[in-house]
Amino acid sequence: MSDTAVPGPAAPAEGPVGPGPYRITSFTCHDVRFPTSRELDGSDAMHPDPDYSAAYLVLRTDDGFEGYGFAFTIGRGNEVQTAAVEALAPYVVGRDAEDLGALGREMVHDSQLRWLGPEKGVMHMAISAVVNALWDLRARRAGKPLWLLLGEMPPEEIVDLVDFRYLTDALTRAEALEILRAAEPGRAARVARLREHGYPAYTTSPGWLGYDDAKLRRLCEEAMAAGFTQIKLKVGADLEDDRRRMRVARETCGADFPIAVDANQRWDVDSAIAWVGALAEFRPHWVEEPTSPDDVLGHAAIARAVAPIPVATGEHVANRTVFKQLLQAGAISYLQLDAARVAGVNENVAILLLAAKFGVPVCPHAGGVGLCELVQHLSMFDYVAVSGSMENRVIEYVDHLHEHFADPVVIRDGSYVAPGRPGFGARMHAASVAAYSYPGGEVWRSRG
Amino acid sequence: MSDTAVPGPAAPAEGPVGPGPYRITSFTCHDVRFPTSRELDGSDAMHPDPDYSAAYLVLRTDDGFEGYGFAFTIGRGNEVQTAAVEALAPYVVGRDAEDLGALGREMVHDSQLRWLGPEKGVMHMAISAVVNALWDLRARRAGKPLWLLLGEMPPEEIVDLVDFRYLTDALTRAEALEILRAAEPGRAARVARLREHGYPAYTTSPGWLGYDDAKLRRLCEEAMAAGFTQIKLKVGADLEDDRRRMRVARETCGADFPIAVDANQRWDVDSAIAWVGALAEFRPHWVEEPTSPDDVLGHAAIARAVAPIPVATGEHVANRTVFKQLLQAGAISYLQLDAARVAGVNENVAILLLAAKFGVPVCPHAGGVGLCELVQHLSMFDYVAVSGSMENRVIEYVDHLHEHFADPVVIRDGSYVAPGRPGFGARMHAASVAAYSYPGGEVWRSRG
Repeated sequence: MSDTAVPGPAAPAEGPVGPGPYRITSFTCHDVRFPTSRELDGSDAMHPDPDYSAAYLVLRTDDGFEGYGFAFTIGRGNEVQTAAVEALAPYVVGRDAEDLGALGREMVHDSQLRWLGPEKGVMHMAISAVVNALWDLRARRAGKPLWLLLGEMPPEEIVDLVDFRYLTDALTRAEALEILRAAEPGRAARVARLREHGYPAYTTSPGWLGYDDAKLRRLCEEAMAAGFTQIKLKVGADLEDDRRRMRVARETCGADFPIAVDANQRWDVDSAIAWVGALAEFRPHWVEEPTSPDDVLGHAAIARAVAPIPVATGEHVANRTVFKQLLQAGAISYLQLDAARVAGVNENVAILLLAAKFGVPVCPHAGGVGLCELVQHLSMFDYVAVSGSMENRVIEYVDHLHEHFADPVVIRDGSYVAPGRPGFGARMHAASVAAYSYPGGEVWRSRG
Repeated sequence: MSDTAVPGPAAPAEGPVGPGPYRITSFTCHDVRFPTSRELDGSDAMHPDPDYSAAYLVLRTDDGFEGYGFAFTIGRGNEVQTAAVEALAPYVVGRDAEDLGALGREMVHDSQLRWLGPEKGVMHMAISAVVNALWDLRARRAGKPLWLLLGEMPPEEIVDLVDFRYLTDALTRAEALEILRAAEPGRAARVARLREHGYPAYTTSPGWLGYDDAKLRRLCEEAMAAGFTQIKLKVGADLEDDRRRMRVARETCGADFPIAVDANQRWDVDSAIAWVGALAEFRPHWVEEPTSPDDVLGHAAIARAVAPIPVATGEHVANRTVFKQLLQAGAISYLQLDAARVAGVNENVAILLLAAKFGVPVCPHAGGVGLCELVQHLSMFDYVAVSGSMENRVIEYVDHLHEHFADPVVIRDGSYVAPGRPGFGARMHAASVAAYSYPGGEVWRSRG
């Protein structure tokens, strides 16, 4: 058992237990950083040297349960993110956190804290860490994986999680209920299908900008051999490089294999249109983050100009209000939610409902630290209880840093295996937290 | 001289001096909070109990100059904002900060820090504090008020400050240059007019939600007697209250006096349209922040529905990319920039140029801690060198907390008097910084 140093005095309790009473008595946030920039893992046109990091939160209750959550960053500034999570301790410590919808809204709309966003950036990501840790805790108490816990909830309870503020011109509570009720028949069959076949994944591992062509070719071959049905390449730094790398990937994968491209916000509207045009002959499956994640009208203009190549975005979209507009404007054909940027599970339930309302498939962003571990639950919940469909949907998969998690994702035949263990998958090994803590952990001390 | 405790070992040097060489050697950020929630000053429909606060930055150079800047918050979380400012020290300490355009872009686009936004929230506001402090420093070195320093710069140098990333579908460098060159003739005459007559102000002081009708009536009378040509009322908490307060204000001020209303993001799109409809008989001069500052399409829908009542927004707009869209969508008739939310002077120059391109008047947000002291420089620069016009333009004025500033704004006959002293106006009295520092300052210690 590696979990002796952090976080608790004893091994955490295991569910299922009844609903209470209990209190959250401990709230500890760790600044954890992995020196990934050494290997150019994760390098893209805007983030050439990420050190994948997390402001990692451990909650503990007076009856011995724990809950884990985190905000994901890529290095510098993770101490600011950690301070932001710590600022939320007063909203949680001493509480039982039974009404997660209300508690989430209390943090999001705090009359003083909201000035720091509102609903965006460091403070919103901090709320994500707390809300997700509370869900992790609840699922552990229930003795169920989160996707199943959510997927078994009555539609009325699911809708109570949603903050409809700023959404009602696109999605009302009544419409959300209707979507969830329409998906109620067949929930059990979809749970069974997930347990048998899992949820399809695609892999970004071949396509980081820092890799040479030989490595790209080898990783493409490995991805196909592993059963992935889609890959993704980073683009946007140099057009001729992108054309050469797309040609290598297309030659390696074959004419019909889905190859998405991802510009990570590199372009202005006009340059996006021109650049995607110059890649069109390689038939990208989608073009991801062509420009600023704030630019709804820009995405819409690009989508019109590059059609039929679909546009995808979402990992940096700040909140449900921006997603609402991307859908209203017809700006995206794929919605890429992120588990740890918006205000956690609650806001992602809202986003899944918005996507279902507009008929846009959700293909979550993952990678980084632990994002794969989290988003699989959201997509599986979507399949069971919201959209009811896996058609045209894949979850991103990146083979980084899973070894630090107590319940790492399992990929089989190119699909995420449905998690069986209780929780939201966010728990890191205590030894990893200790070793990679910044700046005091042994990994950082040994680097000077 | 009250500035003995903070920040420097000696009184700061005074300009004008030549361009260098010098280095920034000291970077200190203070968590300063004023307990304004006691008096309901600043109360609105979303922020009923603000404690006006600042993450207040003091820079010092090796030749004895100082520069001051801040991020404004309303209380809780100001420690997170302070940590974010401190995270930027490595970009400034040891530098000469002569190329402020490049240094600003270096912070905004830092390949790791940008993940915390990008370009929004706590981290972006921190960049604002640093960039504004560097401008304050430069203006002090030059021995000029910032508005005049900027207003005398050649168009090419002004354009070099602008980050055109994500703007070029609406404003190119060539177009920006054209706007600035068109305003070059007449700069001197406009400087003279500002020095003689100042820049018109409007006041929000009568209209805070927490005030009763008698206080509202008295403050309306005082505002008119003081020469203000517009007031603003907070609305959005209770429709019948709003109608009663608008009636009081309209009766007190007369049929034709401009009375704006401000909902501080309280409404969804449909409720905004209905609520503004119910206030239409009182003929609001504009309706401000009717909904989420992120909702470009929502603002556009509201603007279409409530016309001819104009829509205004901006104090919570995260960056130039969102302002660009508000203008492209025809969503706003008044643009209300904020001095300390976007990435400082540099990004506000971009926003002024965007507004000029679209022919939308800029009426800055102010109030809080020191925002009046800052924005007056931006509006005066706009008048001298960008739009060249004061038509239909007013700067917000709120009579709060000016006593803590070394160079407080001066209002005469309802107008801002053009600042004559060097700098950007951000310097607080050292005694105020000490007394209101949180949690150790005497004001907070005495409150337990």
